[in-house]
Amino acid sequence: MTQQHRARAARPAGPDSGGPDSAVLRAEAAHLDAADPLAHVRERFVLGAADAAAGAHGGAAGVYLDGNSLGALPRSVPERLADVVRREWGELRIRSWRESGWWTAPERIGDRIAPLVGAGPGQVVVGDSTSVNVFKALVAAVRMAGDDRDELLVDATTFPTDGYIARSAARLTGRTLRPVAPGEVHDALGPRTAAVLLNHVDYRSGRLHDLPGLTAAVHRAGGYAVWDLCHSAGALPVGLDAHGVDLAVGCTYKFLNGGPGAPAFLYVRKDLQERYDSPLPGWNSHEAPFGMRGEYTPADGVVRARVGTPDILSMLALEAALDVWDGVRIADVRAKSLALTDFFLKCVAAYVPPGRVEVVTPLPHGERGSQVALRCPDAGAVMERLIARGVVGDFRAPDVLRFGFTPLYLGFAETEAAAAVLAGELGGQTA
Amino acid sequence: MTQQHRARAARPAGPDSGGPDSAVLRAEAAHLDAADPLAHVRERFVLGAADAAAGAHGGAAGVYLDGNSLGALPRSVPERLADVVRREWGELRIRSWRESGWWTAPERIGDRIAPLVGAGPGQVVVGDSTSVNVFKALVAAVRMAGDDRDELLVDATTFPTDGYIARSAARLTGRTLRPVAPGEVHDALGPRTAAVLLNHVDYRSGRLHDLPGLTAAVHRAGGYAVWDLCHSAGALPVGLDAHGVDLAVGCTYKFLNGGPGAPAFLYVRKDLQERYDSPLPGWNSHEAPFGMRGEYTPADGVVRARVGTPDILSMLALEAALDVWDGVRIADVRAKSLALTDFFLKCVAAYVPPGRVEVVTPLPHGERGSQVALRCPDAGAVMERLIARGVVGDFRAPDVLRFGFTPLYLGFAETEAAAAVLAGELGGQTA
Repeated sequence: MTQQHRARAARPAGPDSGGPDSAVLRAEAAHLDAADPLAHVRERFVLGAADAAAGAHGGAAGVYLDGNSLGALPRSVPERLADVVRREWGELRIRSWRESGWWTAPERIGDRIAPLVGAGPGQVVVGDSTSVNVFKALVAAVRMAGDDRDELLVDATTFPTDGYIARSAARLTGRTLRPVAPGEVHDALGPRTAAVLLNHVDYRSGRLHDLPGLTAAVHRAGGYAVWDLCHSAGALPVGLDAHGVDLAVGCTYKFLNGGPGAPAFLYVRKDLQERYDSPLPGWNSHEAPFGMRGEYTPADGVVRARVGTPDILSMLALEAALDVWDGVRIADVRAKSLALTDFFLKCVAAYVPPGRVEVVTPLPHGERGSQVALRCPDAGAVMERLIARGVVGDFRAPDVLRFGFTPLYLGFAETEAAAAVLAGELGGQTA
Repeated sequence: MTQQHRARAARPAGPDSGGPDSAVLRAEAAHLDAADPLAHVRERFVLGAADAAAGAHGGAAGVYLDGNSLGALPRSVPERLADVVRREWGELRIRSWRESGWWTAPERIGDRIAPLVGAGPGQVVVGDSTSVNVFKALVAAVRMAGDDRDELLVDATTFPTDGYIARSAARLTGRTLRPVAPGEVHDALGPRTAAVLLNHVDYRSGRLHDLPGLTAAVHRAGGYAVWDLCHSAGALPVGLDAHGVDLAVGCTYKFLNGGPGAPAFLYVRKDLQERYDSPLPGWNSHEAPFGMRGEYTPADGVVRARVGTPDILSMLALEAALDVWDGVRIADVRAKSLALTDFFLKCVAAYVPPGRVEVVTPLPHGERGSQVALRCPDAGAVMERLIARGVVGDFRAPDVLRFGFTPLYLGFAETEAAAAVLAGELGGQTA
């Protein structure tokens, strides 16, 4: 454990110190931190000063538990982005499209994300927002399924944008949208099923859905499985290739730390690429984009899933951000993620009065993503107070406290400290 | 004229110096530069070092004539973007969505672009690529027109992506795409016309189309006019409100200097916003985006033209880039643009052997954008040699040399120098 790490995890003097279980839990945290094979990765992020400042305001050491909304800043980004701006844009200007590799960035960066989601090369492309990629994937999937299949199934509990976009995709392709609860997907599948849009991890509850099983069920019904990986990419093994997923989308600003609004990614399985018929066939997807031909001929490979000119500044910041993954095994990330959320739940159980919050996140490891969601009626007000004290999670209406656990830069001592601050705000043991 | 300006415009010693008309044209350039009311704006851009370097390689003073493809770097960008990365993302992190104004950036920056295209506030929103915005605008326009109108007209000479996307929009909305030459639009309009997608300035020839007249004609036919402003925004007065344009899209990385792949903009006229029915109804367009409601209810105003999470780094670089417009009148930009292209054509006529190139750009001011396109069979090879000598334009297949004139940072002396280098490469008078 580094000096910085120790400093950040230190408990503030005052009302939050002391308590019957806290000494034991703190000792456990120290043990877990000392044995953490990912502890050194924390140094790849900018964390200390900001969180110390937050702590100074609120009287608590800062703990950032919102990496599932916006990942922390990797140290590799600022200098790289400054060079992109000053030299590649400022000096080389238009020549950078070729000489600085701007033109091929979407597929190059896609290939760097690919191993994190269990995909071989040539199947992931970066660009556009998640919403736009959901649209591309769904229309493409429906077209692959053919005209005889007229239903588009969507997780009824999904992040709302997926539902809105799915409705639009259904409307524009003449399909019927059928929202179903994740547990009812199996029963809803049938010969009418064209495509199914599912979330790998529920944004609110943190529930991890059964990607292998549901994908296989969709395939047995003859449909196409489209997965939204926003809350799993970079947090746990996805295994896109291994489980035969058809198409998938994900964002890069959560567990991939690509920066605010960083471009999303789209996965199209190799053997389906030839049948990928884009609803957004922009010039970047053309086989000869500078041929300026009137006729549209899509490029081979996943390049055909590109649309317009890529947003280079955001995209190259993301590329630099991916450096934090050098030498990191996603299996280690998953193990630490589960250990962190287990430990947080243990601390919450010890410190928070029984019944004050309901644990929404499933307890079985196989059903849990990398966040903990707690329900309480005054969640909005509680989260405001937590943030003021430097413990940054987020509130999801109407009554959910959401805490994201990012294994690359979060430790166990600060997890215990965050639980103690939370307990204090909930009127429980102040540890 | 500043010292830097003089230094850049200096003609190199060697084969390009001297010639019968050159002394007169150089004197005229000096006169025009001295009288240029926009000369001081050049200092707001990063230009000198890079172009000197290009000149050192190629033996010519560097002249950047590709601002119609990628605008030069405004000096206001690097420091601002570094602050966005280090402080807003690195320190404030998730809090910046509110505290740093990230969430409202799309409409705030839209309002800064609005006066440059003749739009009042609350009608322009920034985000997504141009291709995606063309799609949004066309589907929305077709829906406004109603089911009885089944034709979508598109400029047959348009930048290809517009044609590809228009074909997709027609396919998804069950309309027929009808490509027509700009001169034939009037005759093609009729009771079947739902919407018409037109380019304000042709990307290849530089021809300026009659936006007021064509918009009025589309309206007389009962259709909706959608304009692509990629090559006019920031180069000349557009007058969206004055001419009653319905919807418009444009890019921000050309004459608006927003950086490579900077987000595009979409204009939806005030009185049409209530009927804007988006094909990409992402959560950012919802009236209560954080309400996380299953039902989609679009926001009031142009916010409903947003889609997903905005790419903040690219977007805030654009915002900083717009500082160069402080105190700049678009009428002055237009006057200088025409003076620059007039003068370039005059130099070309004086230096290049008759018949060696064909001037593709229209000579009448009312039909000219802010570029000069010259046709010659070996255009690709000629442009490669020009770029090697520091005169950076671009090649558009199959046979067009394209030179963009950006009045904010281009002067007359370097325009003459560029023509002289061009003439040398075309085997003409080496001035």
